[in-house]
Parts: sequence; C-alpha cells; structure tokens
Amino acid sequence: MKFGGTSVADLDRIRNVANRVRREVEAGNEVAVVVSAMAGVTNQLVAWCQGLSPLHDAREYDTVVATGEQVTIGLLAIALQTIGVDARSWSGWQIPMRTDGAHGRARIVAVEGEALVARMQAGQVPVVAGFQGIGPDQRVTTLGRGGSDTSAVALAAALRADRCDIYTDVDGVYTTDPRITSRARKLDKIAYEEMLELASVGAKVLQTRSVELAMKERVRVQVLSSFEDRPGTLVVDEDEIVEQAIVSGIAYSRDEAKITVRHVPDRPGVAAAIFGPLSQASINVDMIVQNVSAEGSTDLTFTVGRTDLARTQAVLAEHAQSIGSSTVLADPDVAKISVVGVGMRSHAGVANTMFSTLAAKGINIAVISTSEIKVSVLIAAEYTELAVRALHTAYGLDA
Amino acid sequence: MKFGGTSVADLDRIRNVANRVRREVEAGNEVAVVVSAMAGVTNQLVAWCQGLSPLHDAREYDTVVATGEQVTIGLLAIALQTIGVDARSWSGWQIPMRTDGAHGRARIVAVEGEALVARMQAGQVPVVAGFQGIGPDQRVTTLGRGGSDTSAVALAAALRADRCDIYTDVDGVYTTDPRITSRARKLDKIAYEEMLELASVGAKVLQTRSVELAMKERVRVQVLSSFEDRPGTLVVDEDEIVEQAIVSGIAYSRDEAKITVRHVPDRPGVAAAIFGPLSQASINVDMIVQNVSAEGSTDLTFTVGRTDLARTQAVLAEHAQSIGSSTVLADPDVAKISVVGVGMRSHAGVANTMFSTLAAKGINIAVISTSEIKVSVLIAAEYTELAVRALHTAYGLDA
Repeated sequence: MKFGGTSVADLDRIRNVANRVRREVEAGNEVAVVVSAMAGVTNQLVAWCQGLSPLHDAREYDTVVATGEQVTIGLLAIALQTIGVDARSWSGWQIPMRTDGAHGRARIVAVEGEALVARMQAGQVPVVAGFQGIGPDQRVTTLGRGGSDTSAVALAAALRADRCDIYTDVDGVYTTDPRITSRARKLDKIAYEEMLELASVGAKVLQTRSVELAMKERVRVQVLSSFEDRPGTLVVDEDEIVEQAIVSGIAYSRDEAKITVRHVPDRPGVAAAIFGPLSQASINVDMIVQNVSAEGSTDLTFTVGRTDLARTQAVLAEHAQSIGSSTVLADPDVAKISVVGVGMRSHAGVANTMFSTLAAKGINIAVISTSEIKVSVLIAAEYTELAVRALHTAYGLDA
Repeated sequence: MKFGGTSVADLDRIRNVANRVRREVEAGNEVAVVVSAMAGVTNQLVAWCQGLSPLHDAREYDTVVATGEQVTIGLLAIALQTIGVDARSWSGWQIPMRTDGAHGRARIVAVEGEALVARMQAGQVPVVAGFQGIGPDQRVTTLGRGGSDTSAVALAAALRADRCDIYTDVDGVYTTDPRITSRARKLDKIAYEEMLELASVGAKVLQTRSVELAMKERVRVQVLSSFEDRPGTLVVDEDEIVEQAIVSGIAYSRDEAKITVRHVPDRPGVAAAIFGPLSQASINVDMIVQNVSAEGSTDLTFTVGRTDLARTQAVLAEHAQSIGSSTVLADPDVAKISVVGVGMRSHAGVANTMFSTLAAKGINIAVISTSEIKVSVLIAAEYTELAVRALHTAYGLDA
C-alpha cells in the first residue's frame, strides 16, 4: 500500500491511512506500506536548498529532502500502533534500499529486505520511506520527484507481493481526463504499455519509471483513491485483460512547444546539424516532421518541452551558420493529443479514424508521430478539449 | 563550534553561521561543526507525535524528531560550500555516534569518528547533527532536549579538540542574571564544578550533562554569542583559573515548591516513611530540613520540583497513617538562591556572609543546604531580586 503526499497531509489523514492499513491486516493480508512526505513539506525543503544556492550539492540536497518521508514513516507507525497494529518505520538506509550514486535522481539497484521480511513474517507492518535509498557512498539518496511510486513497486517486487496498491487523489485511470468530458470512464484494467504511453503523454496518475519497473518485474499495480472505498484501476500484463479494447484512452499534453526551422538546405547531414547541438545541450526533442522539399530547401518542424523553448532558440541561433538557416519560428500554443491502445497492433485504421475525426471538426494537424500502440498529433492548443471529446466519442469510449 | 536552534533559525542565520565557520577556517583552525534543529522545528515534530498519541513509541518519536537536525546539517553544508568551504553533513548513524538504547533520552557511549577525522585531515569541515545517535538496535536515537551541547562536547572529546565553542543567544556566563541587576559581569573563566552548580540551579546557559561530560573528558568549553563577535566565557579546570574568586556567581531558581509535614512523631524511621514513597513515585526531593523537636513531635520541611507538587501531596495523603501526620503545608511561592564558588573550599565565612546579608534586608530563610562549593537558601519568592542584588554586592561581584 503506497500513500502519496495528499493522503498523509495532516494528522487526521495519517489516522485515516492507518485505519485503511488496519482493514487490510484484519482481512488477513500481509501488508507493507510506503509513504511520501506530507504534502507541501518537500517543496519547503527544496526551497530552502534553492534559497542557499541554486547550484547546491546534490548529496546535501538529498540529506535535507529525505527528511520529509522520515517524518511520515514515524508518524504513521505511531498512528498504527495507537490502533493496535504492530508496526515500525524503515528509512531507506535501514532496509537498505540500495541505489546508484546519482544523487537527486538515483535509481534503485537492489532492495535488501531480509530484516524487513523477517519482521513481516512475525506479523509486523513495515512503514517504508518512499523516494529514498542509500548510495554506494553510504549516503542518503533520493529518486527524484514522484519516486515514491517507484519505491513502492520495487518493494512489491522484492517482497513478491500479489499486488502494489497506489493510493492517490484520483480513484483510477480514466479513458481521458474527466475534467474535459463527463463521458470519461474509469478503466477496470489497463496494460503496462498503455499506462506507459498515457503517463508519458500527460496523464499524471503514475510516474513513468514506476510503470516501467512494474512491467519489467511483472508487479500488478492498482491505482485507487485514498479517500473513497472502492476498487481502482489495475495495471497489468495485457494477457490479463480479456476483453481488450482497440483504444483504451485519449491523452493530451500542453507541455510542449513547436519549433520550425525554415528554408533549410535539402542535403544530407542537415538534421544532424540541428539535433546534434540540441542533444549536447540536453534538450529532448519529441515529434519531428520534415516537409516536402521545394526548390532545394525544406522546412523542419519538431517539438521540445515548453520550459526548454528559450534555450532551444538560443542553441539554434548559435548554430545558424552550420544549419544553413536562421529563420526559426516558435509556437508554444500547441497541444499533443494521443490515442493509446494495445489493440492497435492487430487493428488497422486506428490512425485514419483519428485524422478523419479531427478533419471533420476543422482541426489542422501540424505534426504526426506514431508508435506500435499510440498515435499522437500536434494541434493548436485552443482545440484541445474539442479534439479530446470528438476522439473519445469516435473510438467508442463514451460512458 | 556548536550552534543552537536560534542561531540557525532561518536561511540568513545559517549563512551567518557559515561565515563564522569560514573565519575560523581561514584563521588556520581545523573545525568541526555541530548544529541543532532550526528554532521551532523540534517543537512542531514533537507536537505531531503527541497529537497522534501521548504514549507514542519512543523509537518512532526519535525517527521523527531527529529529522530536525538532519535538515540543518544539509543546509549548513550547502551554505559553507557556497562560500568556498569544503564541507559535508554527518547524521548520527553516519559517524556513527553510538548511544545506549534509551530512546528519547539516550546517552552517548562512543563516537566512532575515524571516517570523519580522515575527511577533516583532508581539509573538509564536518557538519554534524547534534542531539542524535544510533542505538544498539541500529535505529536512530535522540539524547533528550538540549542534547546538542552534549553531542558537541562528546565530539570535541573524540577529536581531542583544543576547545569546544558553544554559540548561544547569550554572550557568556554572568555572575548573575543580567535581567535582575545591571551590575552583573560576564566571567572570563569559570570552573566546571561552578558551571555545574550554576546549570543545576537555574542558570540555563549549558545543559548539565554537557558540563559533566566536559569535566570528565577535560574538554575546554567556551560559551559565546552567535550574533556578536567577541570572546565569551571559558569553562575550564579550576587549575586554569589563576585569580580565583571566592564566589563566582549568584543563581536563583523558582522551579521548586516547599512542603512542610507538621507534627511528625520524633522517632527513628519517620524520614524513611516520608521519602520512601516519594522516591518510589520518582519524585526528586532537593533541600530537606528537620526542625528541633518539641514535645515528642517535629516538623519536616523539604522542596520538590514545582511540577511535582500535586503528585507529592497525593502521595503524602496516601501514606498519612504510616507517616503519623496528615498535616501537610504546601508553598509554591518560594525561590532558591545559591552562592557558588570553588574558592569556598579554602575560605570560611562564606555562608555567614550570605545569612547576615539576607538578615540585614529582612529576608527570612526557610531552608538551607550546602555543598562543598555552594550554599543555597530557600526564601519567599517575592524577595528574589532583592536577595540576588544584595548578595551580588556583598560578595564583591558588582561591575
């Protein structure tokens, strides 16, 4: 059972979490709990580090920020003991949860949970600090924002748990954002691959890394509400999903910006001249399209994270000569709309339905990219809701 | 260098501490730093534990409360690095600072500082979390409130430091409380034994346990202000104090209450009948006086901590029969005034000066107790300031 920051935001909510855990214990389940820092605490700790130095030592940052979860594990252990559940707290170094040495964005390499397992077998509920571990330098590491989901999945894998329940402030994974259409439906099950595509295109339910790990370790994950008492959405192997829909969900993201480099000479090596310098500047490029050549020159359009837009323009200006063009158009007012479903593998015409649906609504497509189980298009941001609703209906997802 | 909670209360003060440390480093000194939690943080953490359960697990309490210092060490290390001082943080378990298993009030048993010393020898400033250690159960322990002073002295002893500088919100140890008389003088030096008597009778500059440890390990301690830049008071072996005054300071305490048991039968065993049950109830009795017997019965007067007053009365009422008296008078409006100085050992008449000075001001003495270097009297609380000022003058302590 993993509880995020809003689920443990104050003492009342911590008591609520304790009661949930007790119910599982009383139902005869062996339970391990993973918790995040109380909502707002991590932000305060990060702000203190930033306030002293924007370029702070990541090892010291980890020392400071990991205290957030250490507070929650102690408090939840007390709350559990108070209602008669044998419990104890475990920080990352106590388990130990071994990570690599990349402070601030560490990756879990091993969960050495022997002592913890022995206590569980004796009937004790371990309350584990998410988001943290111990590095090869024997110092505290953190996994980066949202890392608590990954901690929970890694622990579930180490314990060979039947299930990893991730309690959040939403009650499951929906066919699309319920704030955009009331016809959005909660999914009972979704495949890992689909969840990965949804997570990476903007459905912020689970952290991408935690889904990757769950898929690799075959951990069955349930996303459910910590405030309501009903089943959520199971994230499982696609073989477990009997009635597989062709399309499972429609996602959208407004976190990208569109860049067009005009009148690029149409010759080999020009893409490298553009994307090489961007890669060196650690700028991730997502969708790319090259227009048909006309009169020996071509237009090259691609997307970057919106927060990288200014840096991207600077890099392109700097390399204008080697690129052969200094005409760069930037448009931050774009949205990426994605249709996701493992059923696409065996069904043709999914992309075409998307294009014709958008055309019927008069929505222009700027860029297209596809993967085995996803079709994404870039459109003007103002059409986001219209596009999502139309596609939700077109793929038969409406409730 | 040890800095308390008010000295690291916010980012500006942490920067100020970093500058102080840098000055010492630039003066060619090898420095280790011990810090407390930011002012107010520990209270918040304690309140959370209390809010969940007044009878919480001390091991979980320690897990929660120790985070306060862990935040400060990371922040101060960042602040030091930012101004060019090589520094790293050390929590109690990382050193490791070994304690016994008495969670919430642990005692340090060993400082295994080999790794820390190696880093110091390479020029790095260790920033150590005060108030915490690691117990035999490999879990985080805390030393109890004020324990950071003790951490600093223990580390200074382990490092064989020339000096342990305790930075506080006062600039040294005074001949008496400057709020009571403007004639109070800051002492340049004070003997361990004197500091112990002053600490235990209410001069709240250093925690008693830290002074005991300093005396045992012969650590020279300096108490000085973290806000002003001038020498404080050195707490040292009395042999180091060349011009030893007979009396070093006048202390007072309003934390006690007076109890008188009237008409107690004047026979052997009656003191045991009173103090046995109090001891079993863990009530500390301080000063005791038995009046001259009259007509086969006597009055027995003693003091207890004011917070124990109600419990003391309940215990005495319960044992009235075996004591042989149920007439118990309680007076919380008393003050203990103490004259302290190692010079008393070799000078007669110190107590007499005290009695005659108080008599001349018309102040009645209820109880007297003495040790080798201290004379204490119990008086009515309303005479506190008058008594302290008169004694300060009588012993030639006025500035």
